[in-house]
Amino acid sequence: MHKLQRMFQPASIAHVGASNDPEKAGYHMFDSLKEFPGKLYPVNHNSAEIQGITAYPDLKSIGSPIDLLVLTIPAEFCSDVIQEAGEIGTGAVLISGGGFEESGKKGRELQDKIVAMCRNFGIRILGPNTSGFINLEIGLKASFNPLVKKLHSGSISIVSQSGAMGVILSTVVQSINLGVDITVGSGNAPDVSISDIIEYLADRPSTHVIALYLEGVEDGRRLYETIRKTVPKKPVVVFTVGRADIDDFAKSHTGKMIGSYELKAAALRQAGAVVASSSNDLIDAAHILSMTRLSPAENPGVGILTGQAGPGMIIMDYLRRRKVYIPELKQETRRRISEELPLKTFIRNPVDTARPEHESFFKVFSYMADDPDIDVLIAFAMHEPMCVDPEDLFERIRLHTKKPIIFGTSGLPEDIDRTIQDLDALMIPSFVSPDRTAQAAWALIEDAKARHRLNLAMDHPHINVVRYPAEVSEYIDEGDAKNIIEAIGIPVPDRMLCDTHDEAEDFFRTMKKPGVLKISSPHICHKTEIGGICLSLSTEKQFKSALDKIDAIEIPDNSRRYLIEQMAPEGIDVIIGAKNDSSFGPTVMIGLGGVVAEAYNDVAMRIAPISHREALEMISELKSGILLGPWRRQTSYDRDAVADALVRIGDFIYNHPELRAIDLNPVRVYQGGLLALDALMVSHSQFRQPV
Amino acid sequence: MHKLQRMFQPASIAHVGASNDPEKAGYHMFDSLKEFPGKLYPVNHNSAEIQGITAYPDLKSIGSPIDLLVLTIPAEFCSDVIQEAGEIGTGAVLISGGGFEESGKKGRELQDKIVAMCRNFGIRILGPNTSGFINLEIGLKASFNPLVKKLHSGSISIVSQSGAMGVILSTVVQSINLGVDITVGSGNAPDVSISDIIEYLADRPSTHVIALYLEGVEDGRRLYETIRKTVPKKPVVVFTVGRADIDDFAKSHTGKMIGSYELKAAALRQAGAVVASSSNDLIDAAHILSMTRLSPAENPGVGILTGQAGPGMIIMDYLRRRKVYIPELKQETRRRISEELPLKTFIRNPVDTARPEHESFFKVFSYMADDPDIDVLIAFAMHEPMCVDPEDLFERIRLHTKKPIIFGTSGLPEDIDRTIQDLDALMIPSFVSPDRTAQAAWALIEDAKARHRLNLAMDHPHINVVRYPAEVSEYIDEGDAKNIIEAIGIPVPDRMLCDTHDEAEDFFRTMKKPGVLKISSPHICHKTEIGGICLSLSTEKQFKSALDKIDAIEIPDNSRRYLIEQMAPEGIDVIIGAKNDSSFGPTVMIGLGGVVAEAYNDVAMRIAPISHREALEMISELKSGILLGPWRRQTSYDRDAVADALVRIGDFIYNHPELRAIDLNPVRVYQGGLLALDALMVSHSQFRQPV
Repeated sequence: MHKLQRMFQPASIAHVGASNDPEKAGYHMFDSLKEFPGKLYPVNHNSAEIQGITAYPDLKSIGSPIDLLVLTIPAEFCSDVIQEAGEIGTGAVLISGGGFEESGKKGRELQDKIVAMCRNFGIRILGPNTSGFINLEIGLKASFNPLVKKLHSGSISIVSQSGAMGVILSTVVQSINLGVDITVGSGNAPDVSISDIIEYLADRPSTHVIALYLEGVEDGRRLYETIRKTVPKKPVVVFTVGRADIDDFAKSHTGKMIGSYELKAAALRQAGAVVASSSNDLIDAAHILSMTRLSPAENPGVGILTGQAGPGMIIMDYLRRRKVYIPELKQETRRRISEELPLKTFIRNPVDTARPEHESFFKVFSYMADDPDIDVLIAFAMHEPMCVDPEDLFERIRLHTKKPIIFGTSGLPEDIDRTIQDLDALMIPSFVSPDRTAQAAWALIEDAKARHRLNLAMDHPHINVVRYPAEVSEYIDEGDAKNIIEAIGIPVPDRMLCDTHDEAEDFFRTMKKPGVLKISSPHICHKTEIGGICLSLSTEKQFKSALDKIDAIEIPDNSRRYLIEQMAPEGIDVIIGAKNDSSFGPTVMIGLGGVVAEAYNDVAMRIAPISHREALEMISELKSGILLGPWRRQTSYDRDAVADALVRIGDFIYNHPELRAIDLNPVRVYQGGLLALDALMVSHSQFRQPV
Repeated sequence: MHKLQRMFQPASIAHVGASNDPEKAGYHMFDSLKEFPGKLYPVNHNSAEIQGITAYPDLKSIGSPIDLLVLTIPAEFCSDVIQEAGEIGTGAVLISGGGFEESGKKGRELQDKIVAMCRNFGIRILGPNTSGFINLEIGLKASFNPLVKKLHSGSISIVSQSGAMGVILSTVVQSINLGVDITVGSGNAPDVSISDIIEYLADRPSTHVIALYLEGVEDGRRLYETIRKTVPKKPVVVFTVGRADIDDFAKSHTGKMIGSYELKAAALRQAGAVVASSSNDLIDAAHILSMTRLSPAENPGVGILTGQAGPGMIIMDYLRRRKVYIPELKQETRRRISEELPLKTFIRNPVDTARPEHESFFKVFSYMADDPDIDVLIAFAMHEPMCVDPEDLFERIRLHTKKPIIFGTSGLPEDIDRTIQDLDALMIPSFVSPDRTAQAAWALIEDAKARHRLNLAMDHPHINVVRYPAEVSEYIDEGDAKNIIEAIGIPVPDRMLCDTHDEAEDFFRTMKKPGVLKISSPHICHKTEIGGICLSLSTEKQFKSALDKIDAIEIPDNSRRYLIEQMAPEGIDVIIGAKNDSSFGPTVMIGLGGVVAEAYNDVAMRIAPISHREALEMISELKSGILLGPWRRQTSYDRDAVADALVRIGDFIYNHPELRAIDLNPVRVYQGGLLALDALMVSHSQFRQPV
């Protein structure tokens, strides 16, 4: 039995705070709970019965252990009841009220106390600060929101950090005639987290797709791992806020900061989730993935048949923009189609039938289905029963092909609602409007691409392959950092770290010119700004005057050393970084070097460790990735070398949680190979602020 | 009377091709037309009556002139009927069939012939290749799409390049319980263009908002001018495809290429239109703007009240991302609110009431309405009649404030449809889902910002202020182009254009060093690639060897000259360009200089001429605009000088239609002033391909 079984699939429920007063949340919670077909015990020491059901004065009077305890009482009374619950034996508690972590210090203390008590008793906690959850498969509605009473059961499960958004998304599901299986608002989630709930749903047969609404993510690493394990079993779709800075509001909501949207979105995608752009898009994505799923594939081909050119163009525009592959139909397919379509419409894909005739429309669609380059079929036809009869069309095409089919349409609700329901029964997902059709198709394909990437990623486990050369402590300056970087296999320039002028000059004499002289000291973080880097040194005279310049920089102790390097030839500069993020753990990033690229904030991020293939994807994801060529008159720079460095730095940060960050800025890339020209590492114990 | 009055508001209609055969478009067209309350004449030389109405064998038999002739006959028969129509006197013709420009050369010829005939007779043409139009104010439905028969009248007019998208968008309008006034599919539009239709609708009292669906735009300049004149009278909202490359399909649809999406979107915004991201967003934008409009304002402030934190966060995230101003509420407003809301929720703006109580919700909303920084009010409350009664809330708040109010909600259709209709009656626009609410609010504000910009732009008419120094002919190389650029007031380096070595050496001796030597010849377009630029020349020896290097470049004639310039100090490089676009006419653009910026394709474009203020907006629009500072440790570069150059180059291209393009690449910008370091002009007569 899954550890959350007693919470989400209880046989008995006690409700403390159940009320006869319709002004109170406890009234509505109990009103919803009343439909529960198992054992239900209202607890209220003032009333003998609650909404017609015999009440118990306290938990002890129930006389047996309970699976789920529901609390709709003020925060300060919760701990006493939990003490009692622990004594009678309780599987889980739903605390719906607020006044905890989200409300400040005192609330945080109350919450901590309750969590400690529950741990002790082995009671799992949902909430606090949530409207609750529903399990429609067993008719359990543990929510104070009266809307839940009207919801029908289905195969989409919703996990939401916001209780309200959970209910709102459930109503969107129902308004497109589908149903939810489980909807949960996780609230402050000091115990049962979103990851726990996903893990539970991953193995729940009645859930076909998991839809998430996220704000801030506290344990991003676990979420990443959990989604990654879930996606091979069933699709996960996500909508998350934070593309703008809304941290102030978010913290007041669930006590969590939003954090970097870019990292969150990158991690979710890497884990295999489909990241939707709005709450409505989320449900459309859940809709299609609850009905059909493509086999994992690198780049599935879409065939688009449309009865009207305009909507076909909108679908094509949307999909191409999102890099969905719309292959030109094979010669043979086009020949067959052109025999059916006498007018000179566009038939390369999309196929535009102009004003369609039902039989032709079916035939053309079946020819497209036969095309080996087509993996997914979209048909768009506005409501025109004279032209196309969708029920007949899809019944026949369903017999003709096993490829996933999507129907896009448009018309007045009274005309199309019935059609859509009929197609639902055939498991053909339908969407009203070309844009929604296209978005859903994208989600279906995104899921297939993500699983393909996951399959490949799993073939390359790079964990623990790097030996770590020395104990890392505090802030590690360029000299030491480059030794480490070199030891893990990333090329750095030929160099020497010297303590004295004599030592430095000796090395300079024998090295290949021109050379570079840099200051090396753990006090100096940004060398350029203080004149700590002297370039293009060819003569001994130039070198000596550079040494004097370095000596003139003020340092509080005698940590000054001289780093002498062979000057690197021209190339293209990238920035490679890694950090142990407080939420997502080890991560790697890449961006183009230089101030211009910085202005564009064009970076690609991944959870570490990564495979070589994932590293190559990161490079391609950069808008500036085209600069690595082939581009214009440029030949190509060595993407494989960059990818290799990313993999190595990812493995390294993964194996060294004591490191806070690694920064290789710049890494100079050549047509063959690369050189890390600067390196910096900071450990978690480093609080001293370098210059 | 407007010139399109007889087309869109006819008193009499003849329909040639009206049919009794339900398989034919002519059947459905006439079936729709039958509802027309004016004089309707079916014309069919084979049937005495059509669908129960007495038919005429030909147009002559009608015995009087007609306002509108509707044709549903094959392309090749149209010209004969138009000849007859011209003879009896006809105001306008709707040609719904295809087989014209969109189908190839022969169709193009047919179309040209018909256009010439109609011009001759003074007949205006709608189409060909369109499903038609509807004018619901007078119950006229001239469309072969049976859906139109079910449409109700309202205040949104839709102009669509695709006939089908016109009908589809109309059904979306009706599905949110609103109605359309006029919907037109413009089809191939060789005569009546989208601009003509907008012009007609601009003065039509029953139309409150104009919604456009565009593919390729052939006469962009006219569209720009038309929208610009319309927006002060009523809002224009647009959705247009082409963010991906879909030209091949588009051309087969209406015969028009899509062109640059960036230029099209920039021109539409500059003209004052609200550019929506999807067809659904378009109708939501039309919805809100059909009910309310803000006064023009630079940056209107939005107040957001929400009964649930999650949706409030989604709204805030969306609006902030689109640069909508969400001001922190005034101290006094927050004091009043905090007295109503005992829980420690977020009240700075958005205001989160947590689970709301109706009376508090109203009071808090009224306090927000009183806040002088708030120009638009959004209230989001999911359907919870126990908590908030929207009808009562908005009736009272409507009495309390005149500020525009938007309601966002969520719930099951059976619960909220009635509420939404009640609020429609109060002219309070309602949207189901937080994302749609936010998008609509953005559209309302975008319209107010656009009008503010238009008002300011109109204060600065820069047209015709530039004297043009010389006749431009063909390709103008750097030497001559810089003289022109200097004459129109854009700084260029001190320089001399020399024919001989002697002349060049004389100038070099006296000039301020270091100098630059460049080849100057109309055959050379890209100087860098062929070694035609020698930098950092300080000595006569260096200069002579540079002259030899320039002489070694092969040129087919004796056009070689030497451009000697004082070398420009370091600064930040931008690219300033202008072109006479084939659709949009004179345009200007700016981007950051250098290969990195080019990779990001980060450019801002405008229709010329522009005001200084618009030029500054272009700079701010660049993602790389922050590099002009103030940014990091950088001081600011001279944005005003850049803006001034943009204005001058815009005026210049506007006054010189014989020029195809001007390219100042790079323009070096300093903390004070700038220098155009290279200049190139190409005229329309230039077809020779420079090296």
